Amino acid sequence: MTRTDDRRSRRREQTRKRLINAARELMAERGFTEVGIAEITAAADLGTGTFYNYFPSREQLLAAVAEDSMEKVGAALDRNVSGLDDPAEAFASSLRHLVRHALTDRVWGGFLVQMGAAHPVLLRILGPRARRDLLRGVETGRFSIEDLDLATTCTFGSLVAAIQLAMESEPREERDQIFARAMLRMVGVPADEAPEVAARKLPEIEV
Amino acid sequence: MTRTDDRRSRRREQTRKRLINAARELMAERGFTEVGIAEITAAADLGTGTFYNYFPSREQLLAAVAEDSMEKVGAALDRNVSGLDDPAEAFASSLRHLVRHALTDRVWGGFLVQMGAAHPVLLRILGPRARRDLLRGVETGRFSIEDLDLATTCTFGSLVAAIQLAMESEPREERDQIFARAMLRMVGVPADEAPEVAARKLPEIEV
Repeated sequence: MTRTDDRRSRRREQTRKRLINAARELMAERGFTEVGIAEITAAADLGTGTFYNYFPSREQLLAAVAEDSMEKVGAALDRNVSGLDDPAEAFASSLRHLVRHALTDRVWGGFLVQMGAAHPVLLRILGPRARRDLLRGVETGRFSIEDLDLATTCTFGSLVAAIQLAMESEPREERDQIFARAMLRMVGVPADEAPEVAARKLPEIEV
Repeated sequence: MTRTDDRRSRRREQTRKRLINAARELMAERGFTEVGIAEITAAADLGTGTFYNYFPSREQLLAAVAEDSMEKVGAALDRNVSGLDDPAEAFASSLRHLVRHALTDRVWGGFLVQMGAAHPVLLRILGPRARRDLLRGVETGRFSIEDLDLATTCTFGSLVAAIQLAMESEPREERDQIFARAMLRMVGVPADEAPEVAARKLPEIEV
């Protein structure tokens, strides 16, 4: 690759990111069905026509925004949560953060619910991370899991369902902890130990 | 309502059922994307034009087939499983039957996966039944659940995810039991007791 190609490709990536960021900000303000292409390009300070050089359709941009948001949350958890000494605490804290994040950033929560637990983007980005955390729990004897794929998929199925319930219901104290307790029990943490693990101080994350 | 109206309405219901049954049988043979309206009406021994007197679209018929199938399975579980003395056994046996049924009747399994855990039809038909079984477990002290809605939604989220995994993976012995164990633990049955409950002889059901 020549230096010019390289510069071009970097600039292209920057413009793509600008569109993604502009779309995310607009959607955060007004919900994600309400935002049109013209507004997005205007907010990114680009001509409307430019849009289609980067995304074949509005839906493709939405998918890119969702993917980018999932990746950001996954990376934030990697930095500050996954490394916790106790694998049960790492697992519970990640789930608690995901529930909390969906309630704080409702566009993100909406993406997750709309995608559903079996969506390829979700599985590709958060799947390996969940599997890694569960495996560490098994290897250290903290979890008792007969089928790692089943435990991973049940975790996602439950997570998306729990987030949808939380987004549609009245706010409730410690919703994240109640959910984490159920998941800890599911992967074999004794019922009388789960509440303590789920109540530990959450490490802060920066998304 | 006059006797004639009554007869008319019964006949209408019968024709509707004939269309639903014909569609289900064709779909069971060939998968549910492959079956057209003309074939369905032919199999039900009706003119093609008749179809639209009963369903506004092919999609509406599909939804009716799915609803009818869910209701049949729900009713079969009500008859032979829900009444088991031990609420934990009733809960585990229902889940095991649902997993097995999806693998035997793959059109039914496909419906469930395509609907997703939060689909109104699924929630309306199986939701109250799951809630009832969970509540009985709580009231008898067999389960320890902090939030019944959360437990119900996590059960469905996990069930649909587990069925999708099972349908896409190699057959595996006792998949239904492994799943039931995880769900029993989730609702608070001690980990060392769950395998025995999940391995009890399944009452037969007739769908």
